[in-house]
Formats: sequence, structure tokens, C-alpha cells
Amino acid sequence: LKNKPIGIFDSGVGGLTVARQIMDALPQEHLIYFGDSLRAPYGDRAPEQLAQFSRQIIDFLMDKDIKALVVACGTISARIFGTVEQMTDIPVLGMVVPGVTAALAATKTGRIGVMATAGTVASGAHRTAILTQRPDAQVMSVACPLFVPLTEEGWSDNTVADMTAQIYLADMAANRIDTAILGCTHYPLLINSIKKALPSDVTIVDPAVVLAQDLKKTLGDAGLTRVDDTLPVHQFYISGNKEKFDKISALALKVSCDAQVVKLYGNK
Amino acid sequence: LKNKPIGIFDSGVGGLTVARQIMDALPQEHLIYFGDSLRAPYGDRAPEQLAQFSRQIIDFLMDKDIKALVVACGTISARIFGTVEQMTDIPVLGMVVPGVTAALAATKTGRIGVMATAGTVASGAHRTAILTQRPDAQVMSVACPLFVPLTEEGWSDNTVADMTAQIYLADMAANRIDTAILGCTHYPLLINSIKKALPSDVTIVDPAVVLAQDLKKTLGDAGLTRVDDTLPVHQFYISGNKEKFDKISALALKVSCDAQVVKLYGNK
Repeated sequence: LKNKPIGIFDSGVGGLTVARQIMDALPQEHLIYFGDSLRAPYGDRAPEQLAQFSRQIIDFLMDKDIKALVVACGTISARIFGTVEQMTDIPVLGMVVPGVTAALAATKTGRIGVMATAGTVASGAHRTAILTQRPDAQVMSVACPLFVPLTEEGWSDNTVADMTAQIYLADMAANRIDTAILGCTHYPLLINSIKKALPSDVTIVDPAVVLAQDLKKTLGDAGLTRVDDTLPVHQFYISGNKEKFDKISALALKVSCDAQVVKLYGNK
Repeated sequence: LKNKPIGIFDSGVGGLTVARQIMDALPQEHLIYFGDSLRAPYGDRAPEQLAQFSRQIIDFLMDKDIKALVVACGTISARIFGTVEQMTDIPVLGMVVPGVTAALAATKTGRIGVMATAGTVASGAHRTAILTQRPDAQVMSVACPLFVPLTEEGWSDNTVADMTAQIYLADMAANRIDTAILGCTHYPLLINSIKKALPSDVTIVDPAVVLAQDLKKTLGDAGLTRVDDTLPVHQFYISGNKEKFDKISALALKVSCDAQVVKLYGNK
């Protein structure tokens, strides 16, 4: 049981930054990653579609006999996490709770910024979770639609990325937030541009770091931690678009890895 | 027969720039537009998928009894135009031929630049069509993946758009092209930034302008021109994502119009 892999899924390649954090925190665990790159992005999908896609992917991962599931997709985590949690009996971790927990621990003033895709911002998931725990918090959410295409173009830390971050984050900076949540798994790839656009005393929270620690604790509590000394074996599956996977995986995982293209569904 | 509408389809909202040119050239014609915004972008789709999607959309438009079909999608036009042409008996016009015809008419030196999505550039459709007619031409194709997200963010003519165009088009400018083709229907929305990034003596070709003239001639030759004095009625259909349609339609059509969301297919 302890030797079973951890399943991770995302709409595409952004979740690889989450896989990286899990590899760092739990270096002995086997990982199985599924990226639905053929149907990405999920941002504008209807909830029923998101649920259907999640069902297909969870079935695929459960067939691989995973012991825990990480929903490394901001949209699924923000919009239908409750539904996805009920699709399986194994522990399920999403991106919203770790980000919010870390931000609440870090903030002094209660002024928290959330940068995310338009769909995640519209869901209000971070805002709701923050205000439930700290009703006097001031939450400022900003949709940053160009951040994903920028990272996918490999343009981090260049002038265009810097300026785009400046435009998106100007209001947050002016509103004196003291903590900012990276609400989309692609955004850690733009961290340098994001840092430059915010005052240097703002704490920037990468939810994946906290999620990896939560996962470690969850596995430990359940007696599911792999203790084998042999190196883990990771498997990467995508639904298409291998070129993009190869490009981003090098940036996000900082190691090269090979992904297998699988068909979970018809030509849709 | 002459009173039947012209059908136009695109993967999303970019084709609205083509609809605009057709409205200008053929102000008395009824238009029916279908944008598959739920499944956009098409750029990375497999040819069989593209053919399947086109089949669904053409069936929808043929049910509306159209007299001619405009494929206002760069990807479909570049990659499976021959297949789509055979799906119906009415005249079918695509984006590649008009762009290439206009560029060949405009170029003096035969040095032609093509800016397009990665998929269209990879197809080599423009290059092949140019070299068939002018074997000594020099074709320089550049993929500009950020142009579409920029226009969808409404960022035309700002510093980020200007700089992005400069980066993408620097090689074209340095290679002394004298003519450039806008190989994606979104790009006319970025025309100011594109102009600034190229030497002022480069002729920039919008294929939609020529397509509208080709369509005028095709209808005239076939005796299909609508001559009624009453104002035409345009219909816009999309498969989802109404917010984006509303945003881009205002920019591309320069009039406000309402789109109806229709389901051509299941929750895929």
C-alpha cells in the first residue's frame, strides 16, 4: 500500500510546478501525472464539463492504483473541488486551501492579493476561504489572463513579462497588500517578473509548497508514506500536445522527463 | 436563392474581423457566423478532430440554408482546406489563397513575411502556395503565439503589444521583407503594433480584404448576389464563452451584436 504512487492531475502542464514541489518534499514517492493538454485550458469550461473531465481522469489514475490524489489545477480546485473529492475514497488535496492557509499565516495586515485566471477569480474561492477564517481580511483578486500564454511561450523574466506583471499588479501594489497568492500553477514560472512588480516586502505564497507539506502529513497520518530506499519511478501522461509538454516540463520540473500521450476519450 | 445568407465559421471570435470586411464589401448580404469558442483554439488539434469539428459546423450552417461558405479560420484554411471544400457543394472560400494572392501582387522583391499561429506556420500552407506561383520568392514565416491572447485581453496598441510585436517581427524587419501577410484572423486587431514593428515601406496584407472581394466576384459570377434594398439580417452563433465574444465583437465588428449560444455537440 505504501508503495503505491501519488496521482496528480492538471488541465495541462502548469501542474508540473506542483509535481516539482512534491518531488522536493517527498523525494521517495512515486508520482503519476496526467495533464489534459488536448482540452486545456479549462478556465472557460462549464462546471458539468469540468466534472466530466475530472471523472475520466480520476478513473484513469485510479486504474493505476494511486494512494492519494492531488488536484493540481486551479480551475478544478476553485470551482468543483467538493464534487471531485466525492469521486474517490482516497485522500484528495486541492490548490485553494494550501494557498489560503499559507497566506493567512503570512499576512500581518490582512491585506491579501490573489492573482489567478479569470475563471478562478470569478469563482471567488480564495476570497470565500480567506473571509471564512478571517472576516476582517481585505482580499484583492486580479485576473491575469496573459500570464499562462507568456509562460507557455517561455517568456519569463523578459521585458514583456515584466511589463505585463506591472500592469496586472499595479493596483495590488498601490493597495498595500502584504501577501500575494499565486493562484494558478503556471505562475511560479513567472516569479521573477511578479516579484519585480510588487513591493519587496510583500510575501508571495506558492500554494504548491504548502500542498506538498500537507500531502506529507496526510500520508504520514494515514501510514501511507513510502519508506523504500530505491529511487521512485515517475510516470507522465498527457492527452496531446507533446511539444508544449517538453518545453514546459524542462522549465517546471528542472529535469527532463518523457510523457506518454494517451487517449482517455474520443476525438472531442 | 440570392436572398440566402453567407455562412462564416471560425474556431472562435477572430473570424469577426473577416465578417467585418465582408459587411463592408457586400453590405446587402445576410451573414450567419458560427464561432466554436468553447473548443477554441484549434491550433493544436489533430487533423481528424479539425475535420470532425468542421463537419459539425458545416452541417449546422447548411441547415440554415447558406449560399456560400467562408472558412474564416487560419488553422482550418491552412491545414484541411481541401477536406472542408469537399464537405459541401456550395462555393467555399478560405484564408490562405486571398492572402497569398494579395502578397504576390504587392511584393516587388519577392521577400514575403508570414505571421501566424504555430500550427499554421508549421503547416507551411502559405509558403507552399507562394512558391508554387513564384518559385524565386523568399518566404519568412514567424509564429506569434502571444498575439491571440493579447487581442483577447484587449491589449492592442499598448506597450506590451508593441514590444511583443517587436520581438516577434525583428527578424522579418532585419531580413528586408517588403510584404507581410497577417496569417491569423485576430491579427488585424493588432495592426498598429505590427506596423510599428516593421519598416514603414512594408506592405501589410489582410487576407480578409481580398477574400471579401473574391466572395463578391464568386457570388456575382454565380448570379447569387443579393439585390434586395432592405437591410440585411446577420446572425451570430457561438458554442460558448459569451463574455469573450462580446468583448472582441465590439473591437472587431465595430458594432455591437448579440450572439446566441448553441450546442452542436455534447459536453466535450
